[in-house]
Amino acid sequence: MSSKYKSLKEECYEANMQLNALDLVVYTFGNVSAVDRENGVFAIKPSGVAYENLRPEDIVILDYDNNIVEGKMRPSSDTKTHSYLYKNWDDIGGIAHTHAKFSCAWAQAQQDVPIFGTTHADHLTADIPCAPPMSDELIKGNYEHNTGIQILDCFKDKNLSHNEVEMILIGNHGPFAWGKNAAKAVYNSKVLEVVAEMAYLTLQINPNAQRLKNSLIKKHYERKHGKNAYYGQ
Amino acid sequence: MSSKYKSLKEECYEANMQLNALDLVVYTFGNVSAVDRENGVFAIKPSGVAYENLRPEDIVILDYDNNIVEGKMRPSSDTKTHSYLYKNWDDIGGIAHTHAKFSCAWAQAQQDVPIFGTTHADHLTADIPCAPPMSDELIKGNYEHNTGIQILDCFKDKNLSHNEVEMILIGNHGPFAWGKNAAKAVYNSKVLEVVAEMAYLTLQINPNAQRLKNSLIKKHYERKHGKNAYYGQ
Amino acid sequence: MSSKYKSLKEECYEANMQLNALDLVVYTFGNVSAVDRENGVFAIKPSGVAYENLRPEDIVILDYDNNIVEGKMRPSSDTKTHSYLYKNWDDIGGIAHTHAKFSCAWAQAQQDVPIFGTTHADHLTADIPCAPPMSDELIKGNYEHNTGIQILDCFKDKNLSHNEVEMILIGNHGPFAWGKNAAKAVYNSKVLEVVAEMAYLTLQINPNAQRLKNSLIKKHYERKHGKNAYYGQ
Amino acid sequence: MSSKYKSLKEECYEANMQLNALDLVVYTFGNVSAVDRENGVFAIKPSGVAYENLRPEDIVILDYDNNIVEGKMRPSSDTKTHSYLYKNWDDIGGIAHTHAKFSCAWAQAQQDVPIFGTTHADHLTADIPCAPPMSDELIKGNYEHNTGIQILDCFKDKNLSHNEVEMILIGNHGPFAWGKNAAKAVYNSKVLEVVAEMAYLTLQINPNAQRLKNSLIKKHYERKHGKNAYYGQ
Repeated sequence: MSSKYKSLKEECYEANMQLNALDLVVYTFGNVSAVDRENGVFAIKPSGVAYENLRPEDIVILDYDNNIVEGKMRPSSDTKTHSYLYKNWDDIGGIAHTHAKFSCAWAQAQQDVPIFGTTHADHLTADIPCAPPMSDELIKGNYEHNTGIQILDCFKDKNLSHNEVEMILIGNHGPFAWGKNAAKAVYNSKVLEVVAEMAYLTLQINPNAQRLKNSLIKKHYERKHGKNAYYGQ
Repeated sequence: MSSKYKSLKEECYEANMQLNALDLVVYTFGNVSAVDRENGVFAIKPSGVAYENLRPEDIVILDYDNNIVEGKMRPSSDTKTHSYLYKNWDDIGGIAHTHAKFSCAWAQAQQDVPIFGTTHADHLTADIPCAPPMSDELIKGNYEHNTGIQILDCFKDKNLSHNEVEMILIGNHGPFAWGKNAAKAVYNSKVLEVVAEMAYLTLQINPNAQRLKNSLIKKHYERKHGKNAYYGQ
Repeated sequence: MSSKYKSLKEECYEANMQLNALDLVVYTFGNVSAVDRENGVFAIKPSGVAYENLRPEDIVILDYDNNIVEGKMRPSSDTKTHSYLYKNWDDIGGIAHTHAKFSCAWAQAQQDVPIFGTTHADHLTADIPCAPPMSDELIKGNYEHNTGIQILDCFKDKNLSHNEVEMILIGNHGPFAWGKNAAKAVYNSKVLEVVAEMAYLTLQINPNAQRLKNSLIKKHYERKHGKNAYYGQ
Repeated sequence: MSSKYKSLKEECYEANMQLNALDLVVYTFGNVSAVDRENGVFAIKPSGVAYENLRPEDIVILDYDNNIVEGKMRPSSDTKTHSYLYKNWDDIGGIAHTHAKFSCAWAQAQQDVPIFGTTHADHLTADIPCAPPMSDELIKGNYEHNTGIQILDCFKDKNLSHNEVEMILIGNHGPFAWGKNAAKAVYNSKVLEVVAEMAYLTLQINPNAQRLKNSLIKKHYERKHGKNAYYGQ
């Protein structure tokens, strides 16, 4: 595979294979993309290809207007959601979409995932937002492009920053997550699934469980992400 | 193994082994068959043989009237259900039966699996039907044959097409799924289990969760199965 | 290892290792025994030995009065329950005890596992019995011996046959299962766990789920265990 | 790696890797330490290092006042909790902290894990305590040090001995466990998770499940830990 986008494709390929290894997808139910900001293109999984058959050279390269730049396969059916996010959020480097079960269950229940503990607060200070389902008008239109709009609208309505909250649930559908690169987007997808499961179990044990108090939210988030962070190397 | 049905047996064998790999069965609790329409025969797992001991040459070949055409072993105890479906639905190529836990739990609860999200709508537009238990008369009679009748009756009562809905739950028993070949029948068994688990979790989070709205059901099903489908290669 | 009981020890060893492979135990929380009726002895796991360290030669041989016949290690702390059952039920060949989670949960809930479906009826026609906790008097006494009494009392009270119902839950404790040999006892332990999980899920979906009707119980049990059984080879 | 603390680092390394193997953590969400009482130091995982990249030489050595004695990496962000416990409980040899899901769910629900069965009583005679969340004052202060105080306060309030109860849940956060060495601390973390899951399932089956009666608690604990214990070799 000789290509200007070889390393981009490999980044994208590796991240897609991680979805499978982390038990976030079955069959072809998910996709990850990685962006190359310098060249204004992104790499994404081809549509409907099983992970065990996927090869780095199968990854499709597109520009932000969804024109195929390189690749013989049809890109993920969710491609237009990815491109819309890359176009509007110029500081993200990767996006992941899965059908992980606890994430999907909260999306199907049309509920935000409440922040109940430090596992959640280590990653974000807000409840994980669940975007309300799209209007019938938008569904019949440019659906995947409109899913991008739906995500941005939800962040605007809830006054959230996509740099602080790197994940969302699409009502009745499932999760999208993003980050500085494709690997980080997959990481956030896994964090979302873990936090979604813990919140589920918490409410089963105690339907009146209280949201984590602000002082503790702040402490855990700041020690990992604040200017005086002391987590990690 | 020299046999006119060598490749049919291998298709059937591979599909049966997938049940195990996909965590849809324990021990011998399941069976898959594959049909050869040209020769009017189907291949099915022998009864009560553990997956780790199963070999392609153990697969039994029968005609649609349940006469053994080739094979030394006793065929699956559910054989007559398979033959009944092959006889009545001449466009299916494979059938799978499992005792996967979420599928069986819904069957034991005697409830259809409601369509709550796009994971479900990517595969079918209806709730996954649960056939009501058989009458005592039919149970005491030709039970496995009557299970076939029970399946067709349920599809007639609910006005469903077996081409659009490729799966069913038998009340108090468990799931059957089918498709164009044995691998697709197994795929549908796994999809059913995943969707059944997500629906379970959804109702635990929100007992008043709403069915997916029609516009979204249609959109997701059509993008994968409609005449302008753009999913897959 | 040269011993008169070499094959008995190996049967016992293999069955113990299966507990682990079938995800029925963590650490040392379980034990399996195998009996040699001709010589009036049984083989059992040594107490507190981790499965990854267990070797066939570590298995302990005892007579029905709990005297060590061969072996340098201390036998399972539950040994006296096993010997009591072997003494009183002269037609069983193996016994298994686990702390599998769904089996233990039903035991801790002090409820019989209701027969909700055919997965259950393929193996037994009754609810899986849960023995009420022992009296304080018996607990303070010869506890493990008295656990054997507790099991027999429960079968008498509920008018059950140990040949038809090869498993029990001890209230607040966990499951015991038995069978014609040690491998069958382990098989029954796994069946119990699977059925216990399905019953759990069924009641979560439908708290008013109905017990399987008698005609279907009979049909499924008979096709596998009746005099005209047609399941298996 | 030539170091006075080579074997201490290896003990700590092995115990940290066990967290992963026992499915108690994802990513870097956990840490284990091991103490060397003679030299007055303890070894702990470096902060934010993924288990697949962790090497024995990465382990950090500190004294009880949190001064780094050996090691180039930043120690776990929870280091001060570990040192506080080592300082105050001079008879423990290892500490483990995880984000295991059932343990965290009970912590997030802010409830003690009730003693429902013998799996629990084999290890401790009390409910597993859940420490109430810290005051805002303490959270803003020396948080990880104060977590140590929070643990000791909870044991004092509930009149528990850290030799008999080797585990705790920190409200809204997650579990800490300890023991005579690092491996035992990890063992106790796994026991806590298993017991937490069983208690969860028990209450789902029977919301009115009763606490284990005292005679049975005592019997099971004593046969494993009493002066006449007969469990193990």
